[in-house]
Amino acid sequence: METQAFMQSEEVRRFNRELAELDLGPLWSAIPELACKEPTTGAIPYLWKWETLRTKLMEAREIFTPDRGGERRAIYLQNPGLKDRQPWGWGCATPTLYAAVQLILPGETAPSHRHTQSALRFITQGQGAYSIVDGERLFMEEGDFLTTPLGLWHGHAHPGDEPMIWMDCLDIPFIYALGGTFFEPHPDHIEPPSRPDDHSPRRYAGGLVRPVSDRKAQTAPLGAFKWEQTRSSLDSLSQFEPDPHDGVAVEFLNPSSGATANPNIAAWMQKLPAGFRSKAHRHTHSTIYHVFRGSGCSIINGTRFDWSEGDYFVVPGWAWHEHNNEGSEDALLFSTSDLPIMERFGVEREESYPKNGGHQEITGHFEPKTL
Amino acid sequence: METQAFMQSEEVRRFNRELAELDLGPLWSAIPELACKEPTTGAIPYLWKWETLRTKLMEAREIFTPDRGGERRAIYLQNPGLKDRQPWGWGCATPTLYAAVQLILPGETAPSHRHTQSALRFITQGQGAYSIVDGERLFMEEGDFLTTPLGLWHGHAHPGDEPMIWMDCLDIPFIYALGGTFFEPHPDHIEPPSRPDDHSPRRYAGGLVRPVSDRKAQTAPLGAFKWEQTRSSLDSLSQFEPDPHDGVAVEFLNPSSGATANPNIAAWMQKLPAGFRSKAHRHTHSTIYHVFRGSGCSIINGTRFDWSEGDYFVVPGWAWHEHNNEGSEDALLFSTSDLPIMERFGVEREESYPKNGGHQEITGHFEPKTL
Amino acid sequence: METQAFMQSEEVRRFNRELAELDLGPLWSAIPELACKEPTTGAIPYLWKWETLRTKLMEAREIFTPDRGGERRAIYLQNPGLKDRQPWGWGCATPTLYAAVQLILPGETAPSHRHTQSALRFITQGQGAYSIVDGERLFMEEGDFLTTPLGLWHGHAHPGDEPMIWMDCLDIPFIYALGGTFFEPHPDHIEPPSRPDDHSPRRYAGGLVRPVSDRKAQTAPLGAFKWEQTRSSLDSLSQFEPDPHDGVAVEFLNPSSGATANPNIAAWMQKLPAGFRSKAHRHTHSTIYHVFRGSGCSIINGTRFDWSEGDYFVVPGWAWHEHNNEGSEDALLFSTSDLPIMERFGVEREESYPKNGGHQEITGHFEPKTL
Amino acid sequence: METQAFMQSEEVRRFNRELAELDLGPLWSAIPELACKEPTTGAIPYLWKWETLRTKLMEAREIFTPDRGGERRAIYLQNPGLKDRQPWGWGCATPTLYAAVQLILPGETAPSHRHTQSALRFITQGQGAYSIVDGERLFMEEGDFLTTPLGLWHGHAHPGDEPMIWMDCLDIPFIYALGGTFFEPHPDHIEPPSRPDDHSPRRYAGGLVRPVSDRKAQTAPLGAFKWEQTRSSLDSLSQFEPDPHDGVAVEFLNPSSGATANPNIAAWMQKLPAGFRSKAHRHTHSTIYHVFRGSGCSIINGTRFDWSEGDYFVVPGWAWHEHNNEGSEDALLFSTSDLPIMERFGVEREESYPKNGGHQEITGHFEPKTL
Ligand SMILES: [Fe+2]
Ligand SMILES: [Fe+2]
Ligand SMILES: [Fe+2]
Ligand SMILES: [Fe+2]
Ligand SMILES: [Fe+2]
Ligand SMILES: [Fe+2]
Ligand SMILES: [Fe+2]
Ligand SMILES: [Fe+2]
Repeated sequence: METQAFMQSEEVRRFNRELAELDLGPLWSAIPELACKEPTTGAIPYLWKWETLRTKLMEAREIFTPDRGGERRAIYLQNPGLKDRQPWGWGCATPTLYAAVQLILPGETAPSHRHTQSALRFITQGQGAYSIVDGERLFMEEGDFLTTPLGLWHGHAHPGDEPMIWMDCLDIPFIYALGGTFFEPHPDHIEPPSRPDDHSPRRYAGGLVRPVSDRKAQTAPLGAFKWEQTRSSLDSLSQFEPDPHDGVAVEFLNPSSGATANPNIAAWMQKLPAGFRSKAHRHTHSTIYHVFRGSGCSIINGTRFDWSEGDYFVVPGWAWHEHNNEGSEDALLFSTSDLPIMERFGVEREESYPKNGGHQEITGHFEPKTL
Repeated sequence: METQAFMQSEEVRRFNRELAELDLGPLWSAIPELACKEPTTGAIPYLWKWETLRTKLMEAREIFTPDRGGERRAIYLQNPGLKDRQPWGWGCATPTLYAAVQLILPGETAPSHRHTQSALRFITQGQGAYSIVDGERLFMEEGDFLTTPLGLWHGHAHPGDEPMIWMDCLDIPFIYALGGTFFEPHPDHIEPPSRPDDHSPRRYAGGLVRPVSDRKAQTAPLGAFKWEQTRSSLDSLSQFEPDPHDGVAVEFLNPSSGATANPNIAAWMQKLPAGFRSKAHRHTHSTIYHVFRGSGCSIINGTRFDWSEGDYFVVPGWAWHEHNNEGSEDALLFSTSDLPIMERFGVEREESYPKNGGHQEITGHFEPKTL
Repeated sequence: METQAFMQSEEVRRFNRELAELDLGPLWSAIPELACKEPTTGAIPYLWKWETLRTKLMEAREIFTPDRGGERRAIYLQNPGLKDRQPWGWGCATPTLYAAVQLILPGETAPSHRHTQSALRFITQGQGAYSIVDGERLFMEEGDFLTTPLGLWHGHAHPGDEPMIWMDCLDIPFIYALGGTFFEPHPDHIEPPSRPDDHSPRRYAGGLVRPVSDRKAQTAPLGAFKWEQTRSSLDSLSQFEPDPHDGVAVEFLNPSSGATANPNIAAWMQKLPAGFRSKAHRHTHSTIYHVFRGSGCSIINGTRFDWSEGDYFVVPGWAWHEHNNEGSEDALLFSTSDLPIMERFGVEREESYPKNGGHQEITGHFEPKTL
Repeated sequence: METQAFMQSEEVRRFNRELAELDLGPLWSAIPELACKEPTTGAIPYLWKWETLRTKLMEAREIFTPDRGGERRAIYLQNPGLKDRQPWGWGCATPTLYAAVQLILPGETAPSHRHTQSALRFITQGQGAYSIVDGERLFMEEGDFLTTPLGLWHGHAHPGDEPMIWMDCLDIPFIYALGGTFFEPHPDHIEPPSRPDDHSPRRYAGGLVRPVSDRKAQTAPLGAFKWEQTRSSLDSLSQFEPDPHDGVAVEFLNPSSGATANPNIAAWMQKLPAGFRSKAHRHTHSTIYHVFRGSGCSIINGTRFDWSEGDYFVVPGWAWHEHNNEGSEDALLFSTSDLPIMERFGVEREESYPKNGGHQEITGHFEPKTL
């Protein structure tokens, strides 16, 4: 404690101020925060209700039309703990990931562009629109997962007849933090097709086999993962014991490399069977969950978050968390995380909650903002 | 030509003989053969009729029973051009690969062992037997593909009630050439199960997703690829233009790495639609084909090889080849090759046949040996 | 422009405010800044004079002693453009890297610890102290380069008799941005030696050969690169045409992998021969330069920065820059950058300055802060 | 034993003969040899005296001149146990490697070509000749090591004034076994220089640093390793305990990848200090030794092989071996092996000799052939 008193003495404060005026910094004072014993990023556990998101999206429908600019009609989730990052809170749902809900209406077009951020989409509502990625039109249906790693041209258009909504996830904050952001509009408003429609999902329609012409590694040989297949994978895997922390869970793969479909962002689909109660753990990576089906609750650092269909919530890195499906129907959670980034830098760690049979004591109840 | 005359002069021959007596060799004489302009290995194009194989396998049924030793009731394909490699022609169907047909009868057991050769199996007839690989019983059905890379314990047993036949393929000659052969019998006669039956094919039953507990790379996370899935992949891929050389073709994948399911041996399933006529090409790797369904012919270096269901044939490396399905039903060819080995050493090359619209002139007709 | 007017209309501003109150964000407004056409991070070109650094370090000498805590007597370079990142400006010299000058006095000990940040050191003054890394004492001399990738125990002690100063560089801001910071003090105050002194630099004393017992890949098989060897490499490379942008430049290697010695931070030593004038270029990665010997100037985005021995300066990502040695002696620049991070994420790009023979027009002159 | 009797019964023999006539093989009989418990390749331990090699090389000097053809004046070591491989015993010193001594006289030229075999050279005598590899003339001196991985143009010429002799080592038998041999003469007789002389060894003259322009991985960024540096590495490494099996040993590196300088062939230089007696071990890979300096003996599978300067000897895979320097001067052994191939296929294993303090009982004495 003598050290602490000294560090807060006027002598030290004055010296630190002198340094600051010279654009210098005192490691001795900064080290407890910059080299913290465990990760701290300011991100907080948080939850957004679907009802709120839907309402604002429907209002945006009237205001933001493609001919008025803005590229996309998307509302992103802003983690309150990371609001102060300039500009725009870096679009942080977590320290590295941006997540949004996007609405496209029949007849609209979201122009093609490409950038150094990687993107993925999960279709939550509607059908009939397509993403065109690298010349391939991928027609989207509920539950489909689409991956668009960095550098690929992509745009959206909607020849169908009902509004479509999906979740976007990109590594915008991470690439922004690196200073690696490059963005380029397509010379055409929307890229014209150069491959057959749904070429890649139809070519990879079976199990773990690959068209032989795809031997050369590609960043996204398979652009869209159809819900029908994901669902059947979960069904089959449900014959076995669920994972104590994650239930019945699969991740989307790049068949060129065996890595996650998107090199920087893991995407998982988990089923929590009716009545399933997971055990708590924590890990370095942060996760954004979307409740695709069902309802239940998660305990995050002791606080209870209730969720139901359509909601989004965030589990920050190194926060204890467990999920309960207290209902009588299976719950399905789609999630994205920065696990591949953590692994690539050797900082991923995991711990199981050591006490009380793996279950946290509930010390609070989260109240989401509503309209 | 003066050089050639000199090289065959008595002076040179005498000097070369002196070297040979000293266990030395003359590069100047050996170079045209050892550093040939294009690959030459002695392997010849060849075909074995199913009728012949079946007959001998049925005879072997009476003679070789598990209690009489020999580990496996398997008859291998001996490439006549590689017969002189000692011992046992190295078991060469091609310079690097061994291929055999194996018969197991109800009630029999083929003991568990492990070795530094990698193995794969393709089930051609029957059902009810299982391979037990690393504690997992994989029950086999027609069309299934099983991979057993080096180092994994494996054995077979047959609790069912009809004879089962499959194709084995291993890199026996390659590992023998390296001097890398290690072999070890299992302490138990047959390894006891330690995982649920068909655990891996059931966990990977859907599309290109992976149970999240399998993030750590494994040599064979998926042990068996069910025919039902392979078939549906071919169906779906059939919606697109077939490959000019290989028709509608898929390869089996390791979902950990995106590499071939077996690290040293590629395994493909190809459909040649009724009436399909491929264009000729040649490549460094050698291929062993099994006619799973249908009939047709292949032209290999100008010689016509007719094939029908159950036959096996070999296309040596760098031999021109094209396949024709002249019938009215789709043909299905299962094949194995040493493509991964060639790629790993940077010696894989490919050329399309440059003349006559990609079709060779037929200069001969192969007569298979029959009983 | 109509779009721009609309985006700044009261209707949009109001809607955006409503979103902010709900912890949501408007992509349509944020996209120009978050998905900028070219990297922007706020970091600015900057220069710190050695005289200023030296003076503050000498003052710190009286105030911060090992027994008063603070782990290290180090003053870090705070990029003024990144001051607002909380806490402590993330210790940012660049968006991803921290850099500091550290002073250790005879008889002092800086305690052993380990962390998920990677560190490197470049010795600028004095001799006699050692770093102990993973049980190996590395005695330091001027010009030596030391690498301490994440996870290795390290501490410093000074049995010699004159003050020692070095430059530290770590990826503190990058790992902080990820939420991947873990830190652990060593159970002993200072780790006891478990290998011979200077074991690795003595084992790798020659050229590009490796002790055969080091075949297994290691994160830091060679802990210290002696100045004598670096110098002789530069001398030998000086026989050839210098690189137009970087002069005579070498990077420090990990002999296990051929990658940069430190996996996340590139470290280079460059010689700008007397009179050498480089051509301008820009690239995604950011660089921190230390003037080890000589003097000259750099033009960064049109502003002239004069430097002399001991100074530090920063070239942010995507800033045009060129270096001139206008003196009569060779200049030596040691530098660190986040190039390996950029490459790992596929965002590294480079452009040569296209106009005026590669030379920028000088539009300003940087005035460094002095005491 | 009942099994064995049955396997040698007339019934089995007859059946096996029938199979052979159908170009088929009996796994039950072949398995003990093809899937042997431990590696067996037929290669035997062997030694060639320098006096013998030198004499034949000098005789060849009169007979084989460049204008009479044959590409190179090289005499290769033929392992007697692998003589029967057709053609030309595959040029086998070991199952995978070819080794030869080559002589070039002042004024001669060995034409440029390229091929899919990888080559390396170790200079044993003379100076003044150069290899020209990919446009770079590498002037050779005693003790230099040169690497020429597959695909690079290479030729030799001798503008100097004394005969030069070196050791060649290539993976001729291995690539031949694969069926991967491609060979191409250069359009010019000898490739003209396109880079400065000795460009790469001069650019990499220092320690473990790399010119920054060499960041992109290359198969052979450094073409020649100068003896002066290898020697100084051995001297420095000699300050530490020698390896019990290999003495003071270093391997040559590719600075792009940290792998062996030649991707398929390891090259080592070992010093056995005066009086040094190693402990026996065995491993999957096979080794070819050249006695660069000194004399001593090796015990291989119980047989004693005496060697002195200039001799060559082979330790086959999985043979027990130990080396003794019984003299009063340090011995230097240059060696090449197929260790990288074994590692790439996961078949490398190593065992220390478990008995008698690590020393074999000597049961025989090898008598080399002499003239
Ligand atoms: Fe986008
Ligand atoms: Fe979790
Ligand atoms: Fe086996
Ligand atoms: Fe082919
Ligand atoms: Fe540290
Ligand atoms: Fe630069
Ligand atoms: Fe050659
Ligand atoms: Fe050895």
